[in-house]
Amino acid sequence: MFKKLINNQIFQVSVRNYKPRRALMYVPGSDERKIDKIRSLQVDCVALDCEDGVALNKKEDARKLITEKLKDIIPTARNDVGVRVNSIDSGLCEEDIKSCLSGSHLPHTLLLPKVETTEHLKWVADKLNNTLETGQKINLIIYIESAIAFINLHDICKTAASLSETGKFTPTSLVFGSDDFCASIGATRTENSNEILYARQKLVLYAKAFNLQAIDMVYIKYKDPDGLKSQCEEGMRMGYTGKQVIHPNQIGIVQESFMPSIDTIEWAQGLLDAFERHQATGKGAFTYRGSMIDMPTMKQAKNIIDLIQSVKKKDPVNN
Amino acid sequence: MFKKLINNQIFQVSVRNYKPRRALMYVPGSDERKIDKIRSLQVDCVALDCEDGVALNKKEDARKLITEKLKDIIPTARNDVGVRVNSIDSGLCEEDIKSCLSGSHLPHTLLLPKVETTEHLKWVADKLNNTLETGQKINLIIYIESAIAFINLHDICKTAASLSETGKFTPTSLVFGSDDFCASIGATRTENSNEILYARQKLVLYAKAFNLQAIDMVYIKYKDPDGLKSQCEEGMRMGYTGKQVIHPNQIGIVQESFMPSIDTIEWAQGLLDAFERHQATGKGAFTYRGSMIDMPTMKQAKNIIDLIQSVKKKDPVNN
Amino acid sequence: MFKKLINNQIFQVSVRNYKPRRALMYVPGSDERKIDKIRSLQVDCVALDCEDGVALNKKEDARKLITEKLKDIIPTARNDVGVRVNSIDSGLCEEDIKSCLSGSHLPHTLLLPKVETTEHLKWVADKLNNTLETGQKINLIIYIESAIAFINLHDICKTAASLSETGKFTPTSLVFGSDDFCASIGATRTENSNEILYARQKLVLYAKAFNLQAIDMVYIKYKDPDGLKSQCEEGMRMGYTGKQVIHPNQIGIVQESFMPSIDTIEWAQGLLDAFERHQATGKGAFTYRGSMIDMPTMKQAKNIIDLIQSVKKKDPVNN
Repeated sequence: MFKKLINNQIFQVSVRNYKPRRALMYVPGSDERKIDKIRSLQVDCVALDCEDGVALNKKEDARKLITEKLKDIIPTARNDVGVRVNSIDSGLCEEDIKSCLSGSHLPHTLLLPKVETTEHLKWVADKLNNTLETGQKINLIIYIESAIAFINLHDICKTAASLSETGKFTPTSLVFGSDDFCASIGATRTENSNEILYARQKLVLYAKAFNLQAIDMVYIKYKDPDGLKSQCEEGMRMGYTGKQVIHPNQIGIVQESFMPSIDTIEWAQGLLDAFERHQATGKGAFTYRGSMIDMPTMKQAKNIIDLIQSVKKKDPVNN
Repeated sequence: MFKKLINNQIFQVSVRNYKPRRALMYVPGSDERKIDKIRSLQVDCVALDCEDGVALNKKEDARKLITEKLKDIIPTARNDVGVRVNSIDSGLCEEDIKSCLSGSHLPHTLLLPKVETTEHLKWVADKLNNTLETGQKINLIIYIESAIAFINLHDICKTAASLSETGKFTPTSLVFGSDDFCASIGATRTENSNEILYARQKLVLYAKAFNLQAIDMVYIKYKDPDGLKSQCEEGMRMGYTGKQVIHPNQIGIVQESFMPSIDTIEWAQGLLDAFERHQATGKGAFTYRGSMIDMPTMKQAKNIIDLIQSVKKKDPVNN
Repeated sequence: MFKKLINNQIFQVSVRNYKPRRALMYVPGSDERKIDKIRSLQVDCVALDCEDGVALNKKEDARKLITEKLKDIIPTARNDVGVRVNSIDSGLCEEDIKSCLSGSHLPHTLLLPKVETTEHLKWVADKLNNTLETGQKINLIIYIESAIAFINLHDICKTAASLSETGKFTPTSLVFGSDDFCASIGATRTENSNEILYARQKLVLYAKAFNLQAIDMVYIKYKDPDGLKSQCEEGMRMGYTGKQVIHPNQIGIVQESFMPSIDTIEWAQGLLDAFERHQATGKGAFTYRGSMIDMPTMKQAKNIIDLIQSVKKKDPVNN
């Protein structure tokens, strides 16, 4: 049973061609100057924003600009380049998808804010079916940012997984939208965010159970590198794999913080090597450093090595 | 879709005639002297208690006294006046409801302790159907105070909402009964209550998802105003909207702590104003202070302004 | 209704002959010297380990040694003596059960690691049906140690309870397997374990809702008695009833920490006495120290007194 699971699940992850998203940076979709700077940034993931970063009277401009710029960016992109559309309930999302996802160059990823119910996912699956061409598939990043979203989290993750089997998206990540979450439940964060610990840790648990990346909240004080670093490390310790970023000067600290330590990398590589040697013997179970190894631990090790390899490939010198 | 939701949901809240419950104070239903003092208290919500505040051999006296006193209190009450009955499993609840809710003056609110299952809610809906007259409806405050209640929390909230559609109660609030909760799971709280953080924050999340008030635990040391204030502020930051109170000298601190700050009020009023202006233009989505506005945030702003207005109306000088 | 519940549920617990598991200590199933020392240890619960404590090439030796040693240990055991098998997904569990549970002396308890789904429980129920003789029944300790296990926790507890009605196991405890949990979600604990607070407290809540013992994580630094004591007390305050132990020198501190305080014992004994006196009067509800008493609180008091009595019985001098 063990080996079959390995074959079915672990290697499936490989095929997906793992994309790290240690830093997920927003760039306003209406700001040409900032979009043109993306190429110079060593950032894992960029979100061309149609939502909060764009004033209401600029939405149409942003859609056109994004569609145009994707032609330049996508062919040579070393990063994950996505488009954050407006929420479905805003009434703007359909037009965002139609404009930005039907050009000659599809973004790698669709970032969908304010997902609250499984209906939202069915709606987006439906729109993608109509918009993307046969054979095209896009990554999906799901924003969890209200009380309702949290009480529906299990259903949202399950439905995303099941819709992805036949549909045109692949869910890759959950994002913790902490500011909208706080506004929606009337909470106020202090520096250690203890007030929303339940929600912040619940999100990690569900992300990991469904083998998704967990992307932590924005650190709003972009001139406070120490505070940023501390919050990165806190999120990392909880199991988060990345963080939202609102300013280029946050990228370095975030991406460094979300790199696994040397010890962790050695542990993970050693585990995968041991598994490979072990497979050659044809036996079922195996142990590593004194522990029986199970699937969740294999997956975690695989995620770590996938991260390292993809970072190396993208940026052979600096990382 | 956005505007339709606004019309259906936000204004429904208005119709309900929002009642703040920043402080929820218990008054033993068998203590005439204390009941007569209620009129002099500036407290949002009073619970005439049949449960823990009344010895077993005084239950019948308390029922009679409460029914009698409601005739005086209700006609001129500026507060929310409720009756806390005994739990359903005690076997005393049916008689409490029959006595206290069939007099000439119905209390505003029924406080139901130790709700653990949806069966409890169906039971109470049934009793109210038999006891209240056609057209009468009563607010319902639900106590969550055991491990079983917490694992059934989603079902309890859903069933309360669905029973209220056709039945004779309107669920308004969840109360975190922390002492019974601790006793039932064998937990012991320290000053910061970190031991029960999971439960305390889970309750807020579900309350907010179902648009209910979240009423925090009792601060038992009623001679420690600083400790009380600190715990109020902590609960407020988590999203709680009020707190249980066991002594009149706790009222002032609690009600002050659970008032939104001036900044928050300005934010909320500005948001509602912007929405009104925006509606005149007939457009769908809108932004406020740089954010796309969604339903949970609109609801939260509405709750804040409803609170302010209802406090002003009740107590034009002091608050 | 109240008295009926008392009769059906509280006294059912008594019949089960409560076994405390303040300390649950692992002994490698392949290490004869350590197994022979068990008899000299004042420990509530011993797990003869087939899993992490045994190298892969020693699994078969361990099964044989355990089966052999059970003949000596069980007839005179004052402790709860269990066998921790390998996880079901390892492919080794079936052989573990077949070997260790079909000898002349059945262990008291089966410890099942890495339970993730209800399928796992059905699988084990099926194997026990085939292995145990008619009329035999074994205690079951369930390990929760991955994100998937936590999202399925409600279903796992419900299925365990329902399978136990007709099957050959009685679920007694949930164990928080924090190290595997951290590895599987990529978390890293600091000294206060705040990073995994959500999971740690969720486990207690579900354990208590299903009237199971909650057994806390391992304290790995076995030469740090102060750190151990502090973590014991923290877990105890959250509602945990015991802790996993990896070294004999941890037993004393753990078992002392997980004894209820004198105050708690007096409270619990007083409550049970009051209930007995009260039953003689034939009335329904009753109060104790100013509180209406409900079922969860009765159960908790019963658990405390059961613990005290079972410890006294086992070890009349030292405890």
